[in-house]
Amino acid sequence: MSNTEFNLDDAVAVLERTSATITAMLDGLPDTWITATEGEGTWSPYDVIGHLIHGEKTDWIPRTRHILSGDKRPFEPFDRNAQFTESEGRTITELLNTFAELRRKNVTTLQSLNLTDADLEKEGQHPELGEVTLSQLLATWVVHDLDHVAQIARTMAKTYGEATGPWNGYLSILRDRK
Amino acid sequence: MSNTEFNLDDAVAVLERTSATITAMLDGLPDTWITATEGEGTWSPYDVIGHLIHGEKTDWIPRTRHILSGDKRPFEPFDRNAQFTESEGRTITELLNTFAELRRKNVTTLQSLNLTDADLEKEGQHPELGEVTLSQLLATWVVHDLDHVAQIARTMAKTYGEATGPWNGYLSILRDRK
Repeated sequence: MSNTEFNLDDAVAVLERTSATITAMLDGLPDTWITATEGEGTWSPYDVIGHLIHGEKTDWIPRTRHILSGDKRPFEPFDRNAQFTESEGRTITELLNTFAELRRKNVTTLQSLNLTDADLEKEGQHPELGEVTLSQLLATWVVHDLDHVAQIARTMAKTYGEATGPWNGYLSILRDRK
Repeated sequence: MSNTEFNLDDAVAVLERTSATITAMLDGLPDTWITATEGEGTWSPYDVIGHLIHGEKTDWIPRTRHILSGDKRPFEPFDRNAQFTESEGRTITELLNTFAELRRKNVTTLQSLNLTDADLEKEGQHPELGEVTLSQLLATWVVHDLDHVAQIARTMAKTYGEATGPWNGYLSILRDRK
């Protein structure tokens, strides 16, 4: 494992690529892939994009501002089910475009804050986890993006689990999160 | 889980998006991300692209032709370490461009074969797995792509495992394949 320290430029380099990555993966794909899940209570790629949109609106930048303001009250809890009502009636292309626009704005905002090393060490109160720093929040933003990219790939892959026949033993992704 | 039957158009829709997906993820990223691994004996994103290139050259289309030819001898075994010599001295951008070009040609070839349902049921001999069908080979091509997209995301995510601090308990990707 190559654990490295948080670096703002490296983090931004990932954050500014996520919407293009997900759009390349999903835009124009047949519905079979977009609506697939890993089973009851799990999310489809469509659900994931709605969740990412909700994060852009209520989580990463609002919590960054909260920490920078010195507010010692806990962050607003994040709603993990908001996408089930907020995405209603919208196509996957609409959701991907909304995510791209919000992410572009949020990365611009993040860069305009000109964060110093001292800013990155500032602390806020997470409603469940307690004390967290700004650099931990921003590292989490990056890992959260990557977690959901992997989730989309895994969910799509499992759709063809049986179709691969004897090869399924070689394809470890079919057994992840079981 | 939404296991579905193999469908050639659905499979092509994924295959033709993989190189754009991986290029959007990786091209221009700082080396920290490109050379990260999950620990000894695991692959970096750079290694993965070399492996995908080798598959385009020696695996998917050659094996498709082998099955269609009716040849009952086993397929040539696939070399899982070819990328360590073949990628030497090449930049990630060069590798991404090579993969994009090979994949574009291979998808064109696949479509030009005008495969029928009867073709998809034709069988070949895998050197370890025994009898496999053409549809299983093509489903495996799709799942193999998605497995490696997820691997790239997971490998990058683990680089920031410690940097996320108390949030790491929420980020399941940090514990996948441990």
